[in-house]
Amino acid sequence: MKIAEQHKDILERAIKANHERTFYAQYPEHPSPKIYGETADKEGREWFQAMVGKKFEELKQADTAGWVGDEESPYLQEPLNITYPTSSTEEYVDNAKTAFDIWRKVSSADRAALLIESLERMKARFFEIAYATMHTTGQGYMMAFQASGPHAADRALEAVALGYEEQMRFPEETTWDKPMGKYNLTLHKEWRKVPKGIGLVVGCSTFPTWNSVPGMYASLVTGNPVIIKPHPGSVLPMAILVAELQNVLAENDIDPLVVQLAVDSYANLITKDLAENKAIKLIDYTGGTVFGDYLEALPGKIVFTEKTGVNSAIIDSTDAVDKMVGNLAFSVSLYSGQMCTAPQNIFVPADGVDTPDGKVSFDEIAGKFVEQFNGLIDNPKAGPFVLGAIQNPATCDRVEDSKKLPGKVLLESRSIENPMFKNARIATPTLIEVDSSQVDVFANELFGPIAFLIKTKDTAESIALARQMAEQHGAISCAAYCTDNETKEHIADQMALAATPVAFNLLTGIYVNQHAGFSDFHVTGGNPAGNASFTNPEYVIKRFVWVGTREPIA
Amino acid sequence: MKIAEQHKDILERAIKANHERTFYAQYPEHPSPKIYGETADKEGREWFQAMVGKKFEELKQADTAGWVGDEESPYLQEPLNITYPTSSTEEYVDNAKTAFDIWRKVSSADRAALLIESLERMKARFFEIAYATMHTTGQGYMMAFQASGPHAADRALEAVALGYEEQMRFPEETTWDKPMGKYNLTLHKEWRKVPKGIGLVVGCSTFPTWNSVPGMYASLVTGNPVIIKPHPGSVLPMAILVAELQNVLAENDIDPLVVQLAVDSYANLITKDLAENKAIKLIDYTGGTVFGDYLEALPGKIVFTEKTGVNSAIIDSTDAVDKMVGNLAFSVSLYSGQMCTAPQNIFVPADGVDTPDGKVSFDEIAGKFVEQFNGLIDNPKAGPFVLGAIQNPATCDRVEDSKKLPGKVLLESRSIENPMFKNARIATPTLIEVDSSQVDVFANELFGPIAFLIKTKDTAESIALARQMAEQHGAISCAAYCTDNETKEHIADQMALAATPVAFNLLTGIYVNQHAGFSDFHVTGGNPAGNASFTNPEYVIKRFVWVGTREPIA
Repeated sequence: MKIAEQHKDILERAIKANHERTFYAQYPEHPSPKIYGETADKEGREWFQAMVGKKFEELKQADTAGWVGDEESPYLQEPLNITYPTSSTEEYVDNAKTAFDIWRKVSSADRAALLIESLERMKARFFEIAYATMHTTGQGYMMAFQASGPHAADRALEAVALGYEEQMRFPEETTWDKPMGKYNLTLHKEWRKVPKGIGLVVGCSTFPTWNSVPGMYASLVTGNPVIIKPHPGSVLPMAILVAELQNVLAENDIDPLVVQLAVDSYANLITKDLAENKAIKLIDYTGGTVFGDYLEALPGKIVFTEKTGVNSAIIDSTDAVDKMVGNLAFSVSLYSGQMCTAPQNIFVPADGVDTPDGKVSFDEIAGKFVEQFNGLIDNPKAGPFVLGAIQNPATCDRVEDSKKLPGKVLLESRSIENPMFKNARIATPTLIEVDSSQVDVFANELFGPIAFLIKTKDTAESIALARQMAEQHGAISCAAYCTDNETKEHIADQMALAATPVAFNLLTGIYVNQHAGFSDFHVTGGNPAGNASFTNPEYVIKRFVWVGTREPIA
Repeated sequence: MKIAEQHKDILERAIKANHERTFYAQYPEHPSPKIYGETADKEGREWFQAMVGKKFEELKQADTAGWVGDEESPYLQEPLNITYPTSSTEEYVDNAKTAFDIWRKVSSADRAALLIESLERMKARFFEIAYATMHTTGQGYMMAFQASGPHAADRALEAVALGYEEQMRFPEETTWDKPMGKYNLTLHKEWRKVPKGIGLVVGCSTFPTWNSVPGMYASLVTGNPVIIKPHPGSVLPMAILVAELQNVLAENDIDPLVVQLAVDSYANLITKDLAENKAIKLIDYTGGTVFGDYLEALPGKIVFTEKTGVNSAIIDSTDAVDKMVGNLAFSVSLYSGQMCTAPQNIFVPADGVDTPDGKVSFDEIAGKFVEQFNGLIDNPKAGPFVLGAIQNPATCDRVEDSKKLPGKVLLESRSIENPMFKNARIATPTLIEVDSSQVDVFANELFGPIAFLIKTKDTAESIALARQMAEQHGAISCAAYCTDNETKEHIADQMALAATPVAFNLLTGIYVNQHAGFSDFHVTGGNPAGNASFTNPEYVIKRFVWVGTREPIA
């Protein structure tokens, strides 16, 4: 194979970007006609609309266990009736075993190039993926395009680059020459990078590609074939990507079953069956903590998880109180709080927040939050598109139940009209005031558009609670507003001990929810929100083993 | 602190050596008077002799739980009556908690320099450590000097260098500048390297420093305080090193309890109590599989293990049959098979071994082994010093029991006289012939001077069994003798899949037992013999977490 040269420039740029951690994007995040073509959006939408009710026939996979598909659109609240070919667990695993001996013998450089080529093919289908994502996750159009398309592709490339770089870390061979006094002892040594085995990637319903491609590409670049088990609620975005990668492999005379899509249905879930199979050595998972803990405890597996967390916002002081509240209200509202990085617990001192104009009282802050939430929700040009739709009806139940929590409901969740989708499943954020003593109320992740305004004794207590929540229940993000350098350092230090990144003083144009590829480590791996991080060295290194040979040179 | 400059040259050389993996040693392995001084050996011996029956008072630790010590010399078969100050588990952990907040704030560069300084101090005590090692492990003098002194120090330095390098991998801060069309979004970003917590290092009785210092120095350089729990049978070698590191810390105004020695007795073992303490986050362990598996399964810990394995030698063909047999006989005899890298299962095809002079039959090979073993054992200038003494009486029982195994005893274990230590506990190797079908006999590690000569159908079966043993029971080394390139590649490939390094065609001057620092990864982490490797990137990366902060630049 001579394809290693094909995307060398992209690979080198990505390796450099991983080191520098300044801004870099290989895939433009704007769905702009200038970049992606005048007709790309329309064609993507039409492709998706034509898929509804059809078989997805692009996969190079058998359908020995029939055609399956349970997706439904949160915007239409109707089944999509798209079906996918399925096989038995044994067939998926047997296919992967066959592919293992082929894929591990493809050079690291060729693997990287093939994977990058699949991302280039993915780029040509960003709009199809965007509509597939909208209508399975409930994300707004812009988020669906960015998160499932360019941002996901950048995260995949990030993993490819780091995985490739790690495989280049030690020489393939060397001469070891040891002076022994009267003579030299000389050995020829070689090192092999041995992939761990078959990888399983378990997707989630809210970010079907963004959360799945890092593990998928990290396993693949290090030589492991991968079985993708998407969430039954959101299959199509990954189906498109898997089909494209299978095409690239087949075109290069490589078994396309190096990557397989293993679709299941709510009535017949197969994740445990796959995960417990002895041949599965690597598992990547995004989802709830109970299932994540079960996977982490499986013996003989290397497991990478992103589970649930309780994210905090610590409000101490600010010189732009309205922009601060607006920023946080937006972060809670974005995709109706269904992001793993969305703030849930907003800590505000009982005696208020320091500003250049003096203290703003707790109640004033509360009032500003209600005002900003309503302003966003009721803006017909913003509200419906920022909120998107609710992926899972259980989230609506959770919002409903939150009314019964022992707190003061400052803002009730309600529904608004989406002008494009009259039947969309919508729940606007609810904001509930509680006291810092009511830890039991705010110590669990209440996934969805639910936030607490928590009255603390002072900032010291806010920090202590934010750290405690992160250490005990996990956290993926922390927003902090503070104009005092010493307090800022204390926040950064205490949250670092809880392995939680802190975004300080975000006001406009950027939100705590956003973790940028090639720069922000997403989930640190150091608290109960997950044991892995997109993409730190540990994330790729654990997927292969260094094994040496040596022999005297005569 | 300004000590980062102090050993910058050593650190840089070690980082380079880790990458190149050619021969490099910071600490000379020969106990030569020219290198270490004319009187060093004598003074080391006398220091050790004077320690017998005394309190070891060099540690900067409290003795609130009394003075404890159970060591006895395998050469004298008498207790050493050396005692060490002890505290309760709670005290050790509380001390480490206090030290944590001090040590994590010392810069990575200063930590590396302080640790290297401790190795330089260790160098001045290599002879004391050598005699302490001889008289607790039973190692011969030369091995005790090399393994516990320079080789251990090199392994520690290797871990310091890789741990330091990993902490330098990403920038401490950067400006992130994203073009947004009409303006640029500019963030100041910082990354912190947050140590995981308190480390526990559980030592073994046979290699008290060599197997303990990699984990100890890896945890320390990445900012974690460490509690060393040596094996009660071999404490003194590590006590010397811990005392020296405590001196270096105190001289630099750092809490010396960043490192603590937690000695226990056979009557009152404390490892479980320490390991299960919630504050212990990192555990390094060398020893038996049952206890290793228990540690690996503890929730909320990062555990690094070296457990037991069944090492194979695959004999296919050779152009130096006597040197080959001599090399393997030496490898089995060295320290009486008490090395984790010693071969146990020697696979020979039933129809013999190809040589330039034609086939050498299985029985001829068997005869040559018996001859070479006896030649070594009965050579008064070599036998006693190569064999050393048996650390644990249970090993002698195991050798005795091996007579009852269903095989043909080709060579019985016996005792020989050590001219310097009339009372030494000695058991020479036993060699037992079995058939490849008797897997149950040779599938367990029989720790000590026990080897099997296994008659296989052919080399293909030898390879399959060696791979199977490694995958199912673990393996740390594999010796192979083969003159055919295709077969060699097959052996390397199959053993790589079982994550076992292969040494080909070793004849003189080097043995499969020896894994060189800065070059050979010791234990790969990829089979049941252990989940960690001295020192691959995973070994250091898992000891700290990358955590970022970001803030808009106005």
